[in-house]
Parts: sequence; structure tokens; C-alpha cells
Amino acid sequence: MEKLITCTAANVSTDDGIVLQGNGADQWSITKKTLVGGVQTGVELLIVDNGLMQITIILTRGMSVLDIQWNDIRIGWDSPVKQVVHPNFVNLEDQGGLGWLSGFNELMVRCGVAFAGHPGDDNGEFLTLHGRIGNLPASRVEVSFEEAPEPTIRVRGLVEEKRFKFGVFELWTELATVVGSDKITIHDRLTNPSEYSQEYQLIYHTNFGRPFLEQDAQFVAPVKTLAPLNEYAAEDLATFQRYLGPTSGYGEQVYCATMLADPQHWTTTMLHNADASLGVAVGYDVQTLPYFNLWKNTDTERDGFVTGLEPATGFPYNRSVERAGGRVNKIGAGQSVDFSMSLQALTADGVAATNTAIQSLMGDRKTKLIETLASEQ
Amino acid sequence: MEKLITCTAANVSTDDGIVLQGNGADQWSITKKTLVGGVQTGVELLIVDNGLMQITIILTRGMSVLDIQWNDIRIGWDSPVKQVVHPNFVNLEDQGGLGWLSGFNELMVRCGVAFAGHPGDDNGEFLTLHGRIGNLPASRVEVSFEEAPEPTIRVRGLVEEKRFKFGVFELWTELATVVGSDKITIHDRLTNPSEYSQEYQLIYHTNFGRPFLEQDAQFVAPVKTLAPLNEYAAEDLATFQRYLGPTSGYGEQVYCATMLADPQHWTTTMLHNADASLGVAVGYDVQTLPYFNLWKNTDTERDGFVTGLEPATGFPYNRSVERAGGRVNKIGAGQSVDFSMSLQALTADGVAATNTAIQSLMGDRKTKLIETLASEQ
Amino acid sequence: MEKLITCTAANVSTDDGIVLQGNGADQWSITKKTLVGGVQTGVELLIVDNGLMQITIILTRGMSVLDIQWNDIRIGWDSPVKQVVHPNFVNLEDQGGLGWLSGFNELMVRCGVAFAGHPGDDNGEFLTLHGRIGNLPASRVEVSFEEAPEPTIRVRGLVEEKRFKFGVFELWTELATVVGSDKITIHDRLTNPSEYSQEYQLIYHTNFGRPFLEQDAQFVAPVKTLAPLNEYAAEDLATFQRYLGPTSGYGEQVYCATMLADPQHWTTTMLHNADASLGVAVGYDVQTLPYFNLWKNTDTERDGFVTGLEPATGFPYNRSVERAGGRVNKIGAGQSVDFSMSLQALTADGVAATNTAIQSLMGDRKTKLIETLASEQ
Repeated sequence: MEKLITCTAANVSTDDGIVLQGNGADQWSITKKTLVGGVQTGVELLIVDNGLMQITIILTRGMSVLDIQWNDIRIGWDSPVKQVVHPNFVNLEDQGGLGWLSGFNELMVRCGVAFAGHPGDDNGEFLTLHGRIGNLPASRVEVSFEEAPEPTIRVRGLVEEKRFKFGVFELWTELATVVGSDKITIHDRLTNPSEYSQEYQLIYHTNFGRPFLEQDAQFVAPVKTLAPLNEYAAEDLATFQRYLGPTSGYGEQVYCATMLADPQHWTTTMLHNADASLGVAVGYDVQTLPYFNLWKNTDTERDGFVTGLEPATGFPYNRSVERAGGRVNKIGAGQSVDFSMSLQALTADGVAATNTAIQSLMGDRKTKLIETLASEQ
Repeated sequence: MEKLITCTAANVSTDDGIVLQGNGADQWSITKKTLVGGVQTGVELLIVDNGLMQITIILTRGMSVLDIQWNDIRIGWDSPVKQVVHPNFVNLEDQGGLGWLSGFNELMVRCGVAFAGHPGDDNGEFLTLHGRIGNLPASRVEVSFEEAPEPTIRVRGLVEEKRFKFGVFELWTELATVVGSDKITIHDRLTNPSEYSQEYQLIYHTNFGRPFLEQDAQFVAPVKTLAPLNEYAAEDLATFQRYLGPTSGYGEQVYCATMLADPQHWTTTMLHNADASLGVAVGYDVQTLPYFNLWKNTDTERDGFVTGLEPATGFPYNRSVERAGGRVNKIGAGQSVDFSMSLQALTADGVAATNTAIQSLMGDRKTKLIETLASEQ
Repeated sequence: MEKLITCTAANVSTDDGIVLQGNGADQWSITKKTLVGGVQTGVELLIVDNGLMQITIILTRGMSVLDIQWNDIRIGWDSPVKQVVHPNFVNLEDQGGLGWLSGFNELMVRCGVAFAGHPGDDNGEFLTLHGRIGNLPASRVEVSFEEAPEPTIRVRGLVEEKRFKFGVFELWTELATVVGSDKITIHDRLTNPSEYSQEYQLIYHTNFGRPFLEQDAQFVAPVKTLAPLNEYAAEDLATFQRYLGPTSGYGEQVYCATMLADPQHWTTTMLHNADASLGVAVGYDVQTLPYFNLWKNTDTERDGFVTGLEPATGFPYNRSVERAGGRVNKIGAGQSVDFSMSLQALTADGVAATNTAIQSLMGDRKTKLIETLASEQ
């Protein structure tokens, strides 16, 4: 006789049930789950099923998007970190400020908002990698559905990043998706409830693995300027658009860019696979996200084969470098700043159409590849 | 059609029900709640309703008093930190030891007990702001009711601050209130269960905003000596009793004092509003709380318009400074030290009576204002 | 009238019920509990009752063994830390990397696995005392029972220690015990799922107090070499086998050893009381645990009267020292390393038999006592 069971301490979830759902033909739903076991215990998820895509939002991790299931394709990436880590198990200060990496496995995680980017000292204050906002739970979550003009599901979450005397921010995040569509849009509003103006930084760290990323996959975008983050990235500046397959010892190469945009300040970037049969488009409003960071991390499959397309308020250097470069803005007392981005799944036709749109944005302008490091701009 | 709902991830609480309640005419009760959502998740509260006042005690945050509802007046203050933050979301080591400020919004929070005061190095050990005791949950909580001599509700909580080889303390806190009264009393016993004597520090960080604090509000106390904490406080030494209204850029000024006491070692301090129609009295036993810190933080409304009346074992400098100044005591092996303080809400008559009592304590003695910094005493 | 009740915030547990149990004559069971109150809230325990011993495993603290009840004797020790501390209340980085000591009270806790030993800098990376694995919850727990060859209860738990780009480990722990026996065996498998080889360290920190430890208790083992950790330990090198009673100011003395083993690479060490009527044997496989640390901490009863018998991959110095001494191994990409140890409770006959077995292992070989510090080997 042998018995084998799995305790409730194992890696399972409770099903908290349907939060909201459609009636009739347009089947859609919003479901809530709470994870149980390991470093996941207590993590709350909302799964938004728009009929075509199942979008998983992590309420407990700053309203990050864990992944999107699109037909039989998972949009996201395979981090060696497999659990959806509760922030209580992430010590941001750990290992010289690298603790954030203990929980990093999302399709989209916001970095910020008092600071983002590299850990290190900024004028006597030690900043940890990518800030606190991605490891704070939403304190208020609202879901809504509107029939017109298009049947749209909306999930809003308030994430508060606050410390008496040292930074007080309220970030209302919003994720919207039209029923049956292959697209999500993010509209965030960052408010400074203080009576003092405050510096802020924000990076939309949006990450993709297979099947979009593979050998000879391409990054396509209306790049105005692009410079390497460091010397290692500079070595391969000329081939920044092309991806390698999984490469032992590759680590990462990061490029710091600005994009051309349409008259409505919207720009579109794209990653597509080698034969252009599959892709993802990341669009965003350059008015409040004037920079873009391309994170190429085509390391081994098991250690993280991934690339990040990252609209941002600046480059991922430490805030001290960013301030010196003029890329750190302030929000006035009681004021707000809005941010918008979108993520769309593309089949071959979509890849072709997006390519055309990007070429049209470029017109006859050429990308300016800058050989000096972005920190020296 | 539009639907709007609030998820259970939002900022709500479960009602765990009545813990204890009175019968018949003297209506009183003790209710327990557990907060849900955001950084509050899992925080347990006891609400003691003595018939006149509703006192909220945070079991999960070292038995702090969040606030007191007294008729239509809330005794407490409006911190920019709005949530009742679970200690698991407070990293005391963060930002050079300032993490404590992420959860600071209580009417009364104890600072200590291995150390309190400013962060920084003490002989090779890095101390974080105001110590650990305010961010540790009670491991045992008892409530009781006694009919005689006065009908009294009592809430006791054990908070253990322990680290193998590096500090072992047991703090039994007690909050008592007579049914129908406008007063609470705190009786705490700090025990050293170790077989070695141990240094300790304790500050009763007791904080008030409107309606007690306003422009021309007054601090009244039988001050024996008073010195500024630093040069900025020294600038306004002469007007230490008078408060400004909300003042942009004010930050904080702190004064370090000793008080005269009655033959039973009891002293009384008071904050009252501009026209002396409302006040709060903070009394305490000077035998084990020989010092008092006045924290004036009449900064903007939204960033924290607040003042602290703080009976303490010393001044809020780093323990290294306090030890050098002879203000750090030890508890012997197996020994205990008792601490007592009270907080009373006052209407115009009470303000007048307390004023008289304080003047009587002073007699013909004069406050000695010391111009040199308290750290140099 | 006086009422006294204990709130649910107090130090109690919910009984989650029987997980698995035997039928008929051989009574055994596995029960699960979740602790409530204080820094214990949410800690999950499995209590394995093999009919003779009740073994408490802490799922939430890396599958540590809290203690074993054996007849009327508790195998374990009395730490000043009384609660079973949830890892969310342990900040490993605290106090110069000593935070681990806030939760230390187990009979057996694993130290590792990216690093173990003393806190401090290792080539630019700050390492905290004894690593992370003892403060990570199991993400998967399985229990099983096998009738043949012996009726054996087995509890397996997966503990994942992972950080993107900075260490990815999976530790499958296993504790097995034969029904009715006085022994547990631990079989752990550490896997490196990465495509890069990784350094690892592991110490089985196995700790005993009374009634095994007392004045004139003895440590008996087939010691091949033994050296002091530091000068203080060197002072009493000659009497390393003999224990003092509780001794104020003793602190700790640590010795770093290697053991002789049988042809199957198994060795046995023992602690027995003064009159050899009671003992515990700690056996282990020296192939992957080539070192052994003897931690003598016969300090006062209330501050921790305890000794550790610790099979290990190295000595408890900082990893930088261990690497320089050639005691830090690597696991290849995708490879695993197995570790085995056992713990057996002994009455007088068992002590005598174990003594004989250890002498037989020694044969005519002599222990080499090394006077220079282990760090200089």
C-alpha cells in the first residue's frame, strides 16, 4: 500500500468565484482567485476573460499583468521564478537592493514610482532596483463593464506608495479590454496628494518569451535615437533589432531609445518571430512616456529567455544619473500625470500591418544610432 | 449598462464580532475586526466602546492606539499614510532605517524597546528609527471587566521583542478605561526574561491633529527644563508653547524636556486649541519616564499637521548619544520596569482645571529654557 | 464580577485535521495545524505521530523540525524565542545580517543553500547569517505511507530558493520514520534547474538542550580532525567533548571537524547525558556532508542552554572564507546532490551500543586536534 496526497500547503489556489460576467452570446467573465502555498500564499488574482484572451492581473503585486492566454499561446515568459511571489517574501533591500528579482516573472510590471532603475545611492538615499510599486498590493479594486461604444471590461486598482515625510503617491491603474479583442489598454493616473511637488519615475517593464522571441526574431519600431546602456550593449549596437536564440553567457544587453510618434503622440513598437507569423505590438503615448528601453536577455531557456519592450519616463540608470540627464520629472502638489500604453497580439496579417504603420511613422527619417552611452547624453 | 463593484481586495474589514459587552444600562462593548485589502490585510483591531469613547487598539501593531472617537471628535491625526499598515509591509531597515515611517499614523505608538529614536550606528550595530516594538503583533491578548471600585474595561496584550543572543524583551501592555469616562490609562510592564541585564528605551509617541491642534493652539506643562533637539528647533525656542497653523516647509521642531511632578511622581501636560475650548491632557509617571519630547510638526494639512506629546525614557537621539548622555537604563536579569501614562479629553472646563493644576505644580518655579542642544547636556 | 477571556489573537492554533492515518493496531497519524496569533500567524505545521514519537515539521519554515516528543521527553531546546516565527517577521538583513536569529528555536534547521554561515561581504555581495532556506515556506508538500519493507511514513516538501539572475535552487526535503521507531531519517535532494553551475552551502543545524545536555554531558564521535573556529574556542580545545552546565557569560564555542566513516560513507556522532542514560545519535553520509561543526552554547538556561551537532558541506565561516579554504562546491547545470542524515533517541543501552560502534569506527586511530584555527586550514 502506498498513499500519496498533496497537502493544502501545496501550490494550489482557492476559487473565490465569479466577480462579474456577461450574459448571452458575448461570453466574458472576471474571476477572482487566491493562491495558497509557498511564497504565493495570500496572493489575489483577477482573471479577465474577454472571450478571446484570459488576462491574469495580480492584485497583490501592484496590479501587474502576470500573463495572457491567447488561443493556445501564452503571452508572457518563463522566469526561473515560478511562483507568484507575495510581496511579504520580497525584501527589496536584499543583496544590495536586488531583492526585486525574487518576484520577477510578469508579462508587465510597473517600476517606480518614487524611483525606478538601478539600485544605488542617490544623494544619501539608497534606492532599490525598480522601486516599490510592483510589490505593493492594491488597496481598492473596481471592475466595470460598458456596453457602448464598444463592450468593454475595465479593471481599476489603486496602489498607494506612501511614507510619512518621504514620498506620498497614489497610482490608479486601469486595464481595459474590448470583448472578443486581441488587445489590452492600460491607462494609469499617478497623483501626488501631497502639498509639495515630488519627483517620480515609471517604467512599464513589458516582457516576452517564446513563441514571439526566438532566434532571428525582430524588434521593429519607429526609433528616433538609440544608444547603448553600457559597453557590453555597445558591442552589438548595429544589430540591436535582431535577436539571438538562447545563448549561454549572454546575460543582457539594454538599449535606451526615443521613438517617433503620430500627431496624437502615439507610437507603436513590435516584436515578431523569425518568419513574422506571430507578434506583439506595444503602443504608448510619448507625451508622458518619452523614453523606451529595449531589454535583450536572450540567455538560456532555463535562466530566462526574454526581451523587454519598456515605455518609460527615463532610462533604467539610478535616479541620480537620470536626474543629471534631465529625465526625472516632478508632479506638482495635488496634481496628476496620466500614462497610456497598449499590448496587442498579432498574427501574420497583424505583423504586416504593424510593420507598414511603423514604416509610415518613420517616413524617410532614419534612426540615429548613438555610439556613446545613454548615460552621457 | 454599466456595473461597478468593489472587490474583496478593497479596503474593507470583516466583523469578527463582540468579544465582551456590558449588560443593562451601562452600555459598553469590545469588538474585534480584521482588516482586508491592501497593506492592511490581516490587521486585527479591538474597538473598546466605553459608552462615551470608542478606542481602537491595533493588536497587530504592538497594541498601538489608532484613534479615539469622542462624541463627534476624532482624537488622532491625519497622516498621509491612510491604511493601517501590517508590519509585514514595513521594512524597518529601508531607506537608511526610516522604514518605520511607512506605517506611522497612530494616536499613540510605543517606540522601543531595545532601542528608540534616530536611526544610525551604535557601536557597530545599525539601529532603525524608533525600534521594533510598534511593528510587532501581540502574541496574547486578554480583556477583562471589573465592577468595583469603578466599572473598568481592561485590554492587555503581550508583545515579545526577541532575538536569540541579541535582546529578549516581553512587554505586557495594558489599556484601561472606566465606563462612561473621557479618559484612558496605560500601564505597561517591561520584563527582561534573560539572565543578563539589558539596556532599554521607550517613547510613548502620542500624537494629535485637529481640532486640538490649530493656529495659536498651546502646549501647557509644568516644564522644569527644555532644550532644543537641534539648531532649527533652537531658532524658535522662546515660542515653544505656541503652535503655528499648517505651514509649508515647516517640517518639524523637537524640544527635549523634563517636567515637575507631584509627590506621587505624576505630572500632567496639555495641548489645547486656540480658544481653550478643547484639549487633551497627557499625564505620566516621571519615575520611569523622566523625560518628555515635544514634537511640533505643523507642516501642511496633507503632509501631516500634527504634534507629539511624548513621555519617554530619554530623548529621541540615537541610542549612542542617549547612552553618552546617561539616559539609557538597564533592566536587571529577570526584572521588570513599570510605565504609566494617561490620556484625557477635555472641554473648556477641563482645560481650565488642568491649567490650574499645572500652575499649582509649577508654584513659583520657572521653566529653565536651555539654549544649548539637548545632546550636549 | 471579573471576566477574563483570551482573544483569537492569542497564541493558539487551529486544528486542520488528520492528513493521513494508519488503521488497526499500528496507530500512527499525520496531523496538520495552522498557528494563530503573534508572529506565528499563518505558520503551518505537520505533526507526524509514528506511534512512539511525535515529530513536528514546520512547513512554513523550510520544513525544519521544531521538536520531537519521545515518551515524556522533548527532543529540542528552549530558545528565548518561544513563538514559531513566520518568515514574514524575519528580516534576514536586519542588524548587520543577524535577523535569522529572530526565528531560531528549531531542533533541526537547514542553513543554506546559496550561502550559509557568518554574515558579511563575499566579493561585493552581502551575505546574511545562515542563508534563506530556513525562512522559506515549502511550495509543495507530499505525505506517503509504505507498508513494506517496513511500515514507513514519509513527508516530502519542496523549498524553492530563487532569484532571477542570482541563484535558482530547488530543495526536495524528505523526512521518513518507521512506525513505532525512535528514529527519523532525512534525505534531501538539492537540484540546480539552471543552465549554469552554482555554488551551494548546506549545514544541518541540529540542536539539543536538556535532558541530553547538562553538566558533564559528553560529545562522542569518530573525530578525525578537529580545530577551533576562533581563539575563544581554542582556549578549551582539549576539553571539547565535555560540556559545562549553564554558565553565565559563556556565549558559544565552535569546533570544526571531520569524521571517520564506514565503507558506506556513514558516520555516527552522539550527545549523551552525564550518566550515559540518555542520548541522541546524529548520523550522516560524509560523501556530500564532509564536515561537521560542533556548537557548544552552554550559556544560561534562559538565554539558550544548547549544543549543535551539525553535519555540513563546510565550516560556518562566511562563504568567502569557505571558498578560499576549498569547502564550497558547485552543482552542475541541471544536476542534483543528495544529502542524508538521521537522528535517533537513545536510552542507556542505545548509548552504550553507539559508543561501541563509534569506537569500532575509530579503531586504533587517534583524533587529530589542530590548534590553529579552522579558517587557516
